[in-house]
Amino acid sequence: MDTIKYTLTEDQMPEFWYNIQADLPAPMPPVLHPGTGQPITPKDLEPLFPTQLIEQEVSQQRWIEIPDQVQSIYRQWRPTPLYRARRLEKALDTPAKIYYKYEGVSPAGSHKPNTAIPQAYYNKIAGVKRLITETGAGQWGSSLSLAGAFFGLEVVVYMVKVSYHQKPYRRAFMESYGARVIASPSNETEAGRNILKQYPDSNGSLGIAISEAVEVAVQDEQTKYALGSVLNHVLLHQTVIGIEALAQLEMAGDYPDIIVGCTGGGSNFAGIAFPFMSAKLKGDRDIKFVAVEPAACPTLTKGKYTYDFGDTAHLTPLVKMHTLGSSFVPQGFHAGGLRYHGMAPLLSHVVDLGLISAKAYGQLDCFAAGLTFARAEGILPAPEANHAVKGAIDEALRCKEEGASKTILFNLCGHGHFDMQAYMDYQAGLLRDTEYSSDEIAMALAGLPVISQ
Amino acid sequence: MDTIKYTLTEDQMPEFWYNIQADLPAPMPPVLHPGTGQPITPKDLEPLFPTQLIEQEVSQQRWIEIPDQVQSIYRQWRPTPLYRARRLEKALDTPAKIYYKYEGVSPAGSHKPNTAIPQAYYNKIAGVKRLITETGAGQWGSSLSLAGAFFGLEVVVYMVKVSYHQKPYRRAFMESYGARVIASPSNETEAGRNILKQYPDSNGSLGIAISEAVEVAVQDEQTKYALGSVLNHVLLHQTVIGIEALAQLEMAGDYPDIIVGCTGGGSNFAGIAFPFMSAKLKGDRDIKFVAVEPAACPTLTKGKYTYDFGDTAHLTPLVKMHTLGSSFVPQGFHAGGLRYHGMAPLLSHVVDLGLISAKAYGQLDCFAAGLTFARAEGILPAPEANHAVKGAIDEALRCKEEGASKTILFNLCGHGHFDMQAYMDYQAGLLRDTEYSSDEIAMALAGLPVISQ
Repeated sequence: MDTIKYTLTEDQMPEFWYNIQADLPAPMPPVLHPGTGQPITPKDLEPLFPTQLIEQEVSQQRWIEIPDQVQSIYRQWRPTPLYRARRLEKALDTPAKIYYKYEGVSPAGSHKPNTAIPQAYYNKIAGVKRLITETGAGQWGSSLSLAGAFFGLEVVVYMVKVSYHQKPYRRAFMESYGARVIASPSNETEAGRNILKQYPDSNGSLGIAISEAVEVAVQDEQTKYALGSVLNHVLLHQTVIGIEALAQLEMAGDYPDIIVGCTGGGSNFAGIAFPFMSAKLKGDRDIKFVAVEPAACPTLTKGKYTYDFGDTAHLTPLVKMHTLGSSFVPQGFHAGGLRYHGMAPLLSHVVDLGLISAKAYGQLDCFAAGLTFARAEGILPAPEANHAVKGAIDEALRCKEEGASKTILFNLCGHGHFDMQAYMDYQAGLLRDTEYSSDEIAMALAGLPVISQ
Repeated sequence: MDTIKYTLTEDQMPEFWYNIQADLPAPMPPVLHPGTGQPITPKDLEPLFPTQLIEQEVSQQRWIEIPDQVQSIYRQWRPTPLYRARRLEKALDTPAKIYYKYEGVSPAGSHKPNTAIPQAYYNKIAGVKRLITETGAGQWGSSLSLAGAFFGLEVVVYMVKVSYHQKPYRRAFMESYGARVIASPSNETEAGRNILKQYPDSNGSLGIAISEAVEVAVQDEQTKYALGSVLNHVLLHQTVIGIEALAQLEMAGDYPDIIVGCTGGGSNFAGIAFPFMSAKLKGDRDIKFVAVEPAACPTLTKGKYTYDFGDTAHLTPLVKMHTLGSSFVPQGFHAGGLRYHGMAPLLSHVVDLGLISAKAYGQLDCFAAGLTFARAEGILPAPEANHAVKGAIDEALRCKEEGASKTILFNLCGHGHFDMQAYMDYQAGLLRDTEYSSDEIAMALAGLPVISQ
């Protein structure tokens, strides 16, 4: 009983992204200008993004066409495979059927190129010469570096300092595509210098790195900012994952009862979940959606759904999202891509609508799950993806207890080839779990801005 | 003009391996017993390999069926994509068409699982419990570890010491599949201890590691030896690469004028080349085959075609091959998979028949070629694969000089995600080229055994 692969032909690759906003029972809360407290306009975003990405950010259109050139590049590795994990099912001795969509086949090794390619494309046709971004684990930075190489754009990456030091090879990977990588907080920006003055040994965080990147991006017209998660247009681009998975499960003659993904900023989870969610919204299907996050950065499970800044230096607009407070700096655990104080506002909105449940796990359990998966399925997951693996395994074990043959789908968003230090540390017993007390969480949340809305 | 992918359906995956021995104008020279100087019999190989692999080793049958379970596992990542490298063609401004077959999509990141899976399968059905092997760069060790995990076999890997230290993450990767990894030369074997007595600081070599693995493998019946290259059955298993490439080029309406691959032990080169060679042997096609090796281990370009041992401690039979002498220990350059003193006897025989030309490059030129490729095509090659990339780029540039629109096919045998230290060293200007003088080569060759045949 080996693992089965479900492959779509290139002709079956999606030609449209799916915008869930068209189908939600209530609109998203507006994004607010921090000075005025009033909703921002598309014009306010122009220093950061090209027009077409801003249009996608605010669009209510259900299907948005994927440009030909983006499709042409997607085809280098898409459609990605969907697998029925029969060896894992056997190892767990579960009556559940476990499917996983594998995004690690992209040249950068994760789902991130799904949005890096269109972002670089829209910037290129808008005449932009240079993209500034931040990266946590380095998956996003690698993907934008790749996209920059394809479109002839200069790429500068502010890499969260703990990851910069934990993962020199990830940095080298970005540099091999021609990008410049800077450890954040850095001395190159006002935001970075302020943090370093207060906390000279700061590990950095995605919130700080975003501040640095935004500060540099607004300084000249040919430079723009690119974000690897959180924003509506990023979640939109990732829906190719779920659209393909739908078609592949149809090939398999199956449909998921449970969909699992890991959440940091929320984009890979949204990518696999949203295209299935419309059936739940219409009442056609009863699907349980499980967002899995690290216990060491429990945004959905312990954060507050309220207005907050997307970054530490408060250069971004205010968005309504689940947040631990923009001053919250999670400890340096080994899933850098999940170390974000906030959450994609669109995903938070969907959580608030009661469509998704969230769960938090410590990293030790996640690494154990990752090794179980690797030995059964042959693919060593990224530490971020291990959260989804752990979530899926737990659902499969619950099925075993209950004797229920449910169908579980999860997103294996990337491979762990650049995360071997983490696996070495885990196998050597050097990793610890971090959990925050309610006092610590309350203290972090105390710094939230006061917004009447 | 983006890169084009040619994908076969799973139904088009080969069901047979191709054995070029059936089509060669002259048989291979026999393998000799070092004690008697007489040809060995299949029985002599039984302490090392299960019967079905020995049968494949000596088979003259043209097509050998791939067992169902091996096909079933191959399908997890096969058929692998063939790409037309249009972005690279544009970057080089060449009239040549460049195609590459990409084997890095396997879970272990290289072509090596093509043989690791059937080797583990045949051992499993023969009742073997434990496989011993050696590895240079770690690609083979990773692949056998993966195959061991799939078939429930214990795997022990003797890893060449220089790679063991250069690539701790490759070691961790093997360990994540459950394998035990030992730096070679080690104190665990007679062969290892003898080397360490003479050269306490030995970097190791594939020849030494083979000695250690063979010594351990013959000690009990439930333990066998597995080799990742060199042997006929290994080359046989790799022919899935070329068989698929043939079908994919047919889809593209094209046929190669030039086929390029890198050579260490010879298996990935044979894998892509042999299925095309029968057309050349029949006189139907005029194809130029180029085997690219490192200048720092110039087996085909500076070695001698003669009988030699496959290992340093002289535990293997004598085989006729291109060799630098079994005592030759190449310096620790960054393409560990190509650091072998000898060559697959079958490939050497084909070279001796005049069917292949060989070329050697220094590692600096190869890394430069790899970065050019990564920025154009998005895939960062393994240092071994960079030799093939360099060879293909040189052929494409020659086409440009000559204004010839030839079709070039090369094998991109693996990705470089575990080789980032090498890229960092290269980018930091820390790497040097090694070339051996004719005196040094002559000295190494002086140690060859004297065989009348």
